[in-house]
Amino acid sequence: MIKPPHPPYRVVLAGAGKVGTCLLERLAHVSDSLAESGVRFRLVAVAELGGAAVDPAGLEPEVLVKLIRDGRPIWTLPRQGQPSMQALDVLQNVEADVLVGATPTEHTRSSIGFRLTCAALHRGWDVVLADKGPLAIAYHELAGLASVGPNYPITPGRPTIQFSAATAGALPIVSLGRSLVGCTIQSIEGVFNGTSHLILGLMELGADFQSALGEAQQQGKAETDPRLDVDGWDAAAKLVIVANAVLDARVSLSDVAIEGISGVTAADLKAARTREHRIIPLAQCRRANGGWSLVVRPTAVPIRHALAKLDPTDLGVAFTTDQVPRLVASTTETGAGSAAIAVLRDLVAVAQARMIIRN
Amino acid sequence: MIKPPHPPYRVVLAGAGKVGTCLLERLAHVSDSLAESGVRFRLVAVAELGGAAVDPAGLEPEVLVKLIRDGRPIWTLPRQGQPSMQALDVLQNVEADVLVGATPTEHTRSSIGFRLTCAALHRGWDVVLADKGPLAIAYHELAGLASVGPNYPITPGRPTIQFSAATAGALPIVSLGRSLVGCTIQSIEGVFNGTSHLILGLMELGADFQSALGEAQQQGKAETDPRLDVDGWDAAAKLVIVANAVLDARVSLSDVAIEGISGVTAADLKAARTREHRIIPLAQCRRANGGWSLVVRPTAVPIRHALAKLDPTDLGVAFTTDQVPRLVASTTETGAGSAAIAVLRDLVAVAQARMIIRN
Repeated sequence: MIKPPHPPYRVVLAGAGKVGTCLLERLAHVSDSLAESGVRFRLVAVAELGGAAVDPAGLEPEVLVKLIRDGRPIWTLPRQGQPSMQALDVLQNVEADVLVGATPTEHTRSSIGFRLTCAALHRGWDVVLADKGPLAIAYHELAGLASVGPNYPITPGRPTIQFSAATAGALPIVSLGRSLVGCTIQSIEGVFNGTSHLILGLMELGADFQSALGEAQQQGKAETDPRLDVDGWDAAAKLVIVANAVLDARVSLSDVAIEGISGVTAADLKAARTREHRIIPLAQCRRANGGWSLVVRPTAVPIRHALAKLDPTDLGVAFTTDQVPRLVASTTETGAGSAAIAVLRDLVAVAQARMIIRN
Repeated sequence: MIKPPHPPYRVVLAGAGKVGTCLLERLAHVSDSLAESGVRFRLVAVAELGGAAVDPAGLEPEVLVKLIRDGRPIWTLPRQGQPSMQALDVLQNVEADVLVGATPTEHTRSSIGFRLTCAALHRGWDVVLADKGPLAIAYHELAGLASVGPNYPITPGRPTIQFSAATAGALPIVSLGRSLVGCTIQSIEGVFNGTSHLILGLMELGADFQSALGEAQQQGKAETDPRLDVDGWDAAAKLVIVANAVLDARVSLSDVAIEGISGVTAADLKAARTREHRIIPLAQCRRANGGWSLVVRPTAVPIRHALAKLDPTDLGVAFTTDQVPRLVASTTETGAGSAAIAVLRDLVAVAQARMIIRN
């Protein structure tokens, strides 16, 4: 193979949970095929709670995966492990090109995700986020510091924030929405939370809310603390990000009317069914009074509705526009695996763009 | 408004049929909003059979639309009209940055679409194609002359060919497929031809093939000569483009096993229905013997299949991969309108990229 002519794109990963681990697996798996197209990554640091692993010459993703699968912290890695080095310290002490933010979502400015994002941008690094928090609370502030989002032109001398993984994993909602150039979008509707969708699906088969939640947890498809999901906050954060990125709606979480699914009963689902409707955990952004109305709420929709046709294990989105009456997309929700694919997609896109700009 | 800092991106349009006319309408409609984001187009020539309209200082899209709607040839335009100037002459005599190819699809190297594409690339212009012909017959030859396709890095000093409108109009099939970086795609299945899908839908309601075709023609949803559609060639051309662009399958039209829908009977549809199946005009690309098997054929699929859930007025695609079990997208087929949106999307993407490269 001919030696690629470009220096590797240096990656710092913050968060070695499910998404981070899946990303490390993918990076190990695809590095050869990416190198053929001239894209090379060098993983220079991974930070988690309690410590980090750092090597300017490059960490081996597969070695880290093995360590994590063995239940050991990454900072126990011989030579490269840095016990008690915090993620923010890593950002100050390592030279890199991009931060991948895969820390747990929190909707506060004091969250580690928000602080890391700001620190990376101030260093001029690109940022690829799986964490929804920073964008849900401060989309426009971050857009002032960087070009934002999937498919946005990546410009020289200015960092970019990409966030495919912060909407609905493998489903490229934002780039789909932005592909509707020249159309006036009238509404964006989505089923953005897999846990809520699965629970309502199980309840349609006869389970009550608690036992459906229990089964979803047993399948590994609901968190031990499922509140962000079943109370609607996860879907609302995604809706805010999509509305800002696609519609430039300039909204934040407090603009969303949110109702979780815990009040839905088996009788409600059955009554809907007899009217040829289905109750789905709908996230909806529609034009209203010159602005936008944002709602997340379990909603009865006709069974002919594109989102009513989804399987309970799917996520989906439907755009309505003046020119293209309907554009719909859906995917099987596989949690961390899909999110890792979305992060990888962003990393490749930014690395390629930076390669061209350097040419 | 601040004057945009970039020179306009100069466009030559070949073909002033339905797609060309819709594109002119869209260009007139969106020019102000695009200018706000720094993208300006200057339409320097439009060519159709019998003549052209040319103006290096820029034609007014809305004036051309009015002329066409009045049933008059564009070369009758005062001052700017050039009776009997052929499209190939326009390419030799005009300075521009991009050719939009919206001439009727023909699957031959002697077609005007193929000759224009080659001529534009040799002049170093970018090419945006609505015409499927050149890509269906010579994808890899064209890829040798230019970077190819939606979302591909647009590099300095080398023209690009973009072709969102050559697959399924508003549905960004190729960019969806390419978003699955890091996944191994096992199959791509699609309903790529709107006429065939609508006819089978009407037949499910009881019509025979001929009367369904007649109704589709009356609705303006089938061509007077519907053979490219109902015989499977249109879907096959799209399948070839998708297989090459997403899978690098290196196939051409002759590699597709093609069967049209004219042999399907109402009895076949009913029999499928009793088995909880639907017959859809399926285009399918699957791994087989180390290569790819490409088939276009009316196929009975289970009613739970994502493509069986489509409305007869929809087009759709479903990807199956090792990492993301399923990624599905669909849109309402609106013919020329959707194609024009797809052309505009490509034009904006290339113009933005060229703007950044010039920076």
